[in-house]
Amino acid sequence: MRGAVIHAPGDVRFEAVDDPKIVHPTDAVIRTAVTCVCGSDLWPYRGAEPIGDPHPMGHEYVGFVEEVGPEVTSVKPGQFVVGSFATSDNTCVNCRNGFQSNCLHREFMSTCQAEYVRIPNAQGTLVATGEVPDEGFWPGLLAVSDVMGTGWWAADAAEVKPGSTAVVVGDGAVGLCGVIAAKEMGAQRIIAMSRHESRQKLAREFGATDIVTERGEEGVERIKELTGGIGADSVLECVGTAEAMRQALHAARPGGNVGFVGVPHEVAIDGQELFFSHVGLRGGPAPVRRYLPDLIDRVLTRRIAPGKVFDQTLPLDQVAEGYRAMDERRAIKTLLKP
Amino acid sequence: MRGAVIHAPGDVRFEAVDDPKIVHPTDAVIRTAVTCVCGSDLWPYRGAEPIGDPHPMGHEYVGFVEEVGPEVTSVKPGQFVVGSFATSDNTCVNCRNGFQSNCLHREFMSTCQAEYVRIPNAQGTLVATGEVPDEGFWPGLLAVSDVMGTGWWAADAAEVKPGSTAVVVGDGAVGLCGVIAAKEMGAQRIIAMSRHESRQKLAREFGATDIVTERGEEGVERIKELTGGIGADSVLECVGTAEAMRQALHAARPGGNVGFVGVPHEVAIDGQELFFSHVGLRGGPAPVRRYLPDLIDRVLTRRIAPGKVFDQTLPLDQVAEGYRAMDERRAIKTLLKP
Repeated sequence: MRGAVIHAPGDVRFEAVDDPKIVHPTDAVIRTAVTCVCGSDLWPYRGAEPIGDPHPMGHEYVGFVEEVGPEVTSVKPGQFVVGSFATSDNTCVNCRNGFQSNCLHREFMSTCQAEYVRIPNAQGTLVATGEVPDEGFWPGLLAVSDVMGTGWWAADAAEVKPGSTAVVVGDGAVGLCGVIAAKEMGAQRIIAMSRHESRQKLAREFGATDIVTERGEEGVERIKELTGGIGADSVLECVGTAEAMRQALHAARPGGNVGFVGVPHEVAIDGQELFFSHVGLRGGPAPVRRYLPDLIDRVLTRRIAPGKVFDQTLPLDQVAEGYRAMDERRAIKTLLKP
Repeated sequence: MRGAVIHAPGDVRFEAVDDPKIVHPTDAVIRTAVTCVCGSDLWPYRGAEPIGDPHPMGHEYVGFVEEVGPEVTSVKPGQFVVGSFATSDNTCVNCRNGFQSNCLHREFMSTCQAEYVRIPNAQGTLVATGEVPDEGFWPGLLAVSDVMGTGWWAADAAEVKPGSTAVVVGDGAVGLCGVIAAKEMGAQRIIAMSRHESRQKLAREFGATDIVTERGEEGVERIKELTGGIGADSVLECVGTAEAMRQALHAARPGGNVGFVGVPHEVAIDGQELFFSHVGLRGGPAPVRRYLPDLIDRVLTRRIAPGKVFDQTLPLDQVAEGYRAMDERRAIKTLLKP
């Protein structure tokens, strides 16, 4: 089969790779329905993370079960399934505690921009829809497998509550899905920090009540002005840079909460500053599996439409162009169709 | 009147100072019933914090109202009152959010090792007991004004829940009160990290089920052994050093919570490590005022006995010896009687 392989910064190729096979009895193999490029894929693409040997890319997927290992009984060939970028057995103590993305048997997906994908821990990872959903739902379900699940987790970790004020730092797909999540959780005021008109528009469509275009301390000042001088109850940090984290921590009110879901790159948090702020901080890879049944339902009942974050659709064999478009911020997120 | 004044590291003197007066209409003046030395007083005493000009010391107090400003109506002369090291109006938005120690009008107390004390924001800060409690309750109520309130906050910030496992890092008075709080909140297993026999004994008396004497990564390993390999649901960090914070973060299970209440000294938290741990982190100066009515009640009904952390009692004029004894760890906490 064929799949995306990164060779060097800026060099992603669609080429022949080995067909995935059942390796462990807990594996499944799926035929990819749709996949996509993630903001985090841009870290190695931009040379901000080491690449090493050429390797496959992609961790977002929905698809059709092709084959299952002997220990997989929860899904069967032909079913349409949604998973997560982090696989989980969904039975270990960390899974039972709701942190499936910290499963004792976790494997991070990394070969999904391809025609077929092997899914480890398939029993605990994959959730099948009742019937094969219309193709129009596929982008939304694909979003659920990563960016929507991550936006939900950001809002959950930031403890968004009905009637509260939420700030979203980052206007990428995760940040935009964070707006959806904050809205669904009942936030009364949702302030999106964004400089890009198309993203502002989508943020508003998803439920943002205010847009702040300023950044850094200037952006924090604007947030303070909008929140009676004290800051927001909840801040969703959806970037992962030191500047975004600083902005998030400063935008939260005393005793507020920051949920951080951008993988931190060179971020150090000053203990004394955090102390005197009273701000609660929690982050990590989203436990998407915890939210899957609920989020799938919200998509299929058209309550949420996170598939709108895909503003570019390409055939899978043009994956390289997808990376380029996202790198140059011509696209928020690129959907890839095998 | 007379009070404690720090002149230099290791040099605390009991000497004549100005009598406190009503300065603002929201002030009260109290006659000290009992006061004490705090672990955090040892930072400047040990030269770990700059001292500058000689200045009064002390931020823990219970006493009798002597005089109130014209805007103070909630307490009156003669009443026995309990307060907090951080004063608060108890009406501003931060107070209403439950973070009275981040009150917009907050003033930190700093003159309490003295015969009389001016209390700013007296209306919101002081809570009077129904009648003057027996002298036997004074140490417990004094503890409530700081160390017990702080231990409670540590357990609250660490989200201790019924049936959960809690670890307490630090066997000072705050850590020991943290054990009381974890017990009251229903933790099933309470692991105290302590190397000192007298403190271990008190920890057990307060409800600790296990003692870990190892420190650093070795201590973390012991905690993991005691918690099925994953770490504790809640960790109370009651020290404030980089080592203690590291220990606390590593002792928490994936998705667990660390409440940190020791004022951090040169503590930096690595964003990426925190991210992958899924651990929630919240700290700060304890919002003692939030807990005062409840904790006063628990003391007066003999449900808790945090006064036991005072293992040395001295006349106030021997305050210098109190500092020495705590510095040399001959005393856990020294009670001072005017």
